[in-house]
Amino acid sequence: MLYVIGLGPGKEELMSREALEAIADCEIIVGYSTYMRLIRDLVKDKEHVATGMRQEIDRCQKAIDLALETGKNVGVVSSGDAGVYGMAGLILELLGDNSELEVKVVPGITASLGAAAVMGAPLMNDFCHISLSDLMTPMSVIEKRLHAAAQGDFVICLYNPRSKGRPDHLSKALSIISQYKSEDTIVGIGKDIGRKEEEYILTTIKDLDESLVDMTTIVIIGNKETYVKNGRMITPRGYTL
Amino acid sequence: MLYVIGLGPGKEELMSREALEAIADCEIIVGYSTYMRLIRDLVKDKEHVATGMRQEIDRCQKAIDLALETGKNVGVVSSGDAGVYGMAGLILELLGDNSELEVKVVPGITASLGAAAVMGAPLMNDFCHISLSDLMTPMSVIEKRLHAAAQGDFVICLYNPRSKGRPDHLSKALSIISQYKSEDTIVGIGKDIGRKEEEYILTTIKDLDESLVDMTTIVIIGNKETYVKNGRMITPRGYTL
Repeated sequence: MLYVIGLGPGKEELMSREALEAIADCEIIVGYSTYMRLIRDLVKDKEHVATGMRQEIDRCQKAIDLALETGKNVGVVSSGDAGVYGMAGLILELLGDNSELEVKVVPGITASLGAAAVMGAPLMNDFCHISLSDLMTPMSVIEKRLHAAAQGDFVICLYNPRSKGRPDHLSKALSIISQYKSEDTIVGIGKDIGRKEEEYILTTIKDLDESLVDMTTIVIIGNKETYVKNGRMITPRGYTL
Repeated sequence: MLYVIGLGPGKEELMSREALEAIADCEIIVGYSTYMRLIRDLVKDKEHVATGMRQEIDRCQKAIDLALETGKNVGVVSSGDAGVYGMAGLILELLGDNSELEVKVVPGITASLGAAAVMGAPLMNDFCHISLSDLMTPMSVIEKRLHAAAQGDFVICLYNPRSKGRPDHLSKALSIISQYKSEDTIVGIGKDIGRKEEEYILTTIKDLDESLVDMTTIVIIGNKETYVKNGRMITPRGYTL
């Protein structure tokens, strides 16, 4: 059995029992080294294969090979939900027509949901996820989606909003979004959600301080009804109160 | 303390430890009767207030009043994630400026993530959530979002896709989506995800049998690259393999 396991935002309390049991059921755990550290107590008695960033294909192929060659249960761990910009798709793609190996995807709480709970309730109406990383999706497609999402007044969760290699993607995204949404639209910035250093900042499109945003950050841009009350970000569901 | 707790798709294995601990920490549990049944073993020694469908405002106001009046810990339970079309927003809206009561939102695995894991990996690229219920969002806004999401080639997760009172919302939505997406686009239908009767069907926009879809169903419509292999629905992340 090959498990692809979503670890949730970071702390063990936000993992599901299914994820904990899947890890317990594995003899070999494969993952990006940062995530392995998050669960080191859970995997300390197991064989583990930790690889660095941007080695996703090698990592997933290795996991498949190990499972097929050894017949042992192997787990590939991903932060958040393994099926959201995670490893689940790559495993199934690499497996192709091979049906010898059973793959079980164990879902997790993805970053947007973890951050939203801390911020209040920004995702109470229609929302979307857009990754600003153009490593695998052309920037033209990302831009088209930013236009579409802002035009539809979706609440927009931005994954991979800004990194050293892509310092200007967030400002580009905000300038597209501002063509449709008011510059006073509420924006929530979640940092290190589910970890000890967890914090969030509520601001607006026009006041957003980009230097607060990096790869450990999730950015949630409200819809036109989103507001802040008592320090929480709230998108109304539409009840008449 | 007032907890707003996401129960995940249905089975206890997919709840987080934080959710289990929050329930354990409450003396009073408030929820829609169907969800209360899902967790009856966890709440059997507690006072509980179960209300029917469409009584969300009463239910949330009751939970706030109970927490303020008794000083006891009260938990409001919601299926999936309490912050996604759930009770978290309503609680914070009703609370308004009252900062006497501490509210903690405990996130959960929302229906789309639970269904995606069972189907394979349909959410590996940008995706959005649209509820087809027009009880609280005007149909014109829903239609605008369907146009935008399809035009941006998002993977689209449809919540509340079809009910007795809204038998034609799904077909309306599909006819809008078909203006931009091919009729051969892969569609996953997840039924009773996370429960004993869990099943999924993979089909296409043109072959979708609407009679399979009801309020216990989540519908995931792929993007133009989504395909089926070995019975699993896969949206490529974009790796060159």
